[in-house]
Amino acid sequence: MPIITLTTDFGYKDHFVGAIKGTIYKELGDPKIVDISHSIAPFNIQECAYILKNSYKNFPDGSIHIVGVDSELSPENQHIAVFADNHYFIMANNGVIGLITSEIVPEKVVEIQLPNPVDGAFPVLDVFVKTACHIARGGKLEVLGRDFKDLKDLRDVKPRISDDGNTLSGSVIYIDNYGNVVSNIEQREFLQYGKGRPFEVLARNKKIRQIHRKYGDIVDYKLEKSQRKSPGEIVALFNTSGYLEIAIYKSDLNTVGGASTLLGLDYRDTIVINFE
Amino acid sequence: MPIITLTTDFGYKDHFVGAIKGTIYKELGDPKIVDISHSIAPFNIQECAYILKNSYKNFPDGSIHIVGVDSELSPENQHIAVFADNHYFIMANNGVIGLITSEIVPEKVVEIQLPNPVDGAFPVLDVFVKTACHIARGGKLEVLGRDFKDLKDLRDVKPRISDDGNTLSGSVIYIDNYGNVVSNIEQREFLQYGKGRPFEVLARNKKIRQIHRKYGDIVDYKLEKSQRKSPGEIVALFNTSGYLEIAIYKSDLNTVGGASTLLGLDYRDTIVINFE
Amino acid sequence: MPIITLTTDFGYKDHFVGAIKGTIYKELGDPKIVDISHSIAPFNIQECAYILKNSYKNFPDGSIHIVGVDSELSPENQHIAVFADNHYFIMANNGVIGLITSEIVPEKVVEIQLPNPVDGAFPVLDVFVKTACHIARGGKLEVLGRDFKDLKDLRDVKPRISDDGNTLSGSVIYIDNYGNVVSNIEQREFLQYGKGRPFEVLARNKKIRQIHRKYGDIVDYKLEKSQRKSPGEIVALFNTSGYLEIAIYKSDLNTVGGASTLLGLDYRDTIVINFE
Repeated sequence: MPIITLTTDFGYKDHFVGAIKGTIYKELGDPKIVDISHSIAPFNIQECAYILKNSYKNFPDGSIHIVGVDSELSPENQHIAVFADNHYFIMANNGVIGLITSEIVPEKVVEIQLPNPVDGAFPVLDVFVKTACHIARGGKLEVLGRDFKDLKDLRDVKPRISDDGNTLSGSVIYIDNYGNVVSNIEQREFLQYGKGRPFEVLARNKKIRQIHRKYGDIVDYKLEKSQRKSPGEIVALFNTSGYLEIAIYKSDLNTVGGASTLLGLDYRDTIVINFE
Repeated sequence: MPIITLTTDFGYKDHFVGAIKGTIYKELGDPKIVDISHSIAPFNIQECAYILKNSYKNFPDGSIHIVGVDSELSPENQHIAVFADNHYFIMANNGVIGLITSEIVPEKVVEIQLPNPVDGAFPVLDVFVKTACHIARGGKLEVLGRDFKDLKDLRDVKPRISDDGNTLSGSVIYIDNYGNVVSNIEQREFLQYGKGRPFEVLARNKKIRQIHRKYGDIVDYKLEKSQRKSPGEIVALFNTSGYLEIAIYKSDLNTVGGASTLLGLDYRDTIVINFE
Repeated sequence: MPIITLTTDFGYKDHFVGAIKGTIYKELGDPKIVDISHSIAPFNIQECAYILKNSYKNFPDGSIHIVGVDSELSPENQHIAVFADNHYFIMANNGVIGLITSEIVPEKVVEIQLPNPVDGAFPVLDVFVKTACHIARGGKLEVLGRDFKDLKDLRDVKPRISDDGNTLSGSVIYIDNYGNVVSNIEQREFLQYGKGRPFEVLARNKKIRQIHRKYGDIVDYKLEKSQRKSPGEIVALFNTSGYLEIAIYKSDLNTVGGASTLLGLDYRDTIVINFE
């Protein structure tokens, strides 16, 4: 039986997630359910897309991803089931699918139209769970509803390159558990525009002249311990999702602070790379 | 094997939940464990009951629900195992069972008296897990202890109707992840007392003249986008659990605020419906 | 198939945990994965050790424990796989293993050296998951790399006994979800040094003359309700992990406060027992 994942803004306290899982168990007997996240900021499509985009590919082909963010049915927020990149996505037409499959054309998109539909305040339970269980049992998308063409075309804000090709301007798209600040500047863009030139990353009033592969790369282990760079130093790296990330080495957002609080960087703030 | 669910105030950081799950795996080999919530406010019986009441029915009949809130054994807080509404509940006699089965008479209640009992500070692990595994293996309640008659009779505070039948007064019983405020006024009471009359919901200094079925119902999609009601508007609805809920459309408690913070509504505060 | 547990500082919001679980499902098909905690304070080795030490033994022998705290590879933070106390631990050589097996000599420790290693910013996914799946499939530690002798020897700070044998001085090593304050003073040390003498526990400016087995033991149920000790009273007990714990009876850290906030006790603060 394929895995069913859950990505929602329901939080971990309320009964919503329990009710969903109970219903899936009732329908399927012995399902495989995996929580991706229930801590998406309420109604935050970009955050939801970032988290789902960076985790769904790790699951086996054929996995079914339920997205419980901004999922109420409306004439402009249809319920859809999508097959793309060998994965199934069940969600509202709220833009998430465009953000996670920006370079993939979905193979199939249908508008979910269940018999005896419940149009209420808990569509994830009433509509998405039923849809997921249908697919998990081997059911086809065609049975769920008609082909849907009108996908809401939300696109990632892409970094801009200046006319002289010397300045790549991006912005903050995610802040993680450590307060690390993730920008929308991808490594391939950096390589494409930079062409190996020396550069300077500007984040607020900080200048960073090196981009690493991992956090600890700022530490030179050949030096004596007292001479080394230590927790609290700024480090820039291309993270494992390929994005330029500004971090504070070994930061704790709840005590000493992370890059977001120490550098004063928030969602949508600008991060710039100047090439020489 | 039946599902074992967990509803506790242990939080998600400490080792308690891990220790419990490890022990269940050790006892049962390949159990089905589902977290309902571990974020109940410590010792909050009402909150625990609200969450469990609105999720347990979604699970298959025969599911076993462990409740780890205010569970220390005392002469007045006995350990009990209950069979009601085709579900098993394992908990202390702290009032939760009365709150979730207020309209159901439990079929069987026994006081748990294990051989070689451990009377310590972690009864969920020492007593409830053993009890749950006994039931999961098909064991009978009779074996666990004698019939128990002295259920603590905590009852929900019910809304009051005024003598003239024109005013229904309830109070806030839950605040969810979005800051939505849930009252104890149920839809059937609204229908019974209101008899179709026009009405006004009073929540703090706000008056609401319509109750919807879902959050987005305040938006009139026939209007131009700029003319429509938008995020930030107050909406009243009967939620999927049947309770009158006051919400802010597309609220985020952590940023713009939710109904609880924007309207200043907290647990036990009054919500009134005046019928004309 | 053995259980794989996860203990990390990744939090519950980011995609990290989802990506890890997806990958384990892809590798093993139908694994048993249990979250111990993802809320370790970032890079906090002591906290990680406390939580893991008090939960791993509850799992069946042969369980595989992935530790995702301070796991980046460096010349001084090697990736290791350990077999100790009939459990497998996969982690960096950051001191956690010494803290959880202080009285056990690990049977086998190898330095993980995978073919085609990925040395990046997400070693839990790239290295630890692969290692765990190898072991879960019945693979041997020998295959993973060479024997490793250079375990980082972090040791718990132990309580000190004064020269006259009358004063046992410990410190706070953990604060739990209720704000209960856990010290490093163990029951066996208390018995060994106290030899049954009367005593006084000093925590900040409070003196406590009794240590209980459970929280409710401060309540005398023979008294009328109005005469009894009630929520808000201080209670000292040896918790189920064997440590001296200072608690506030039925505390809620988010509302009335817990022992940590009400008594002003934080990590590393002193707790003293004076024997007469």
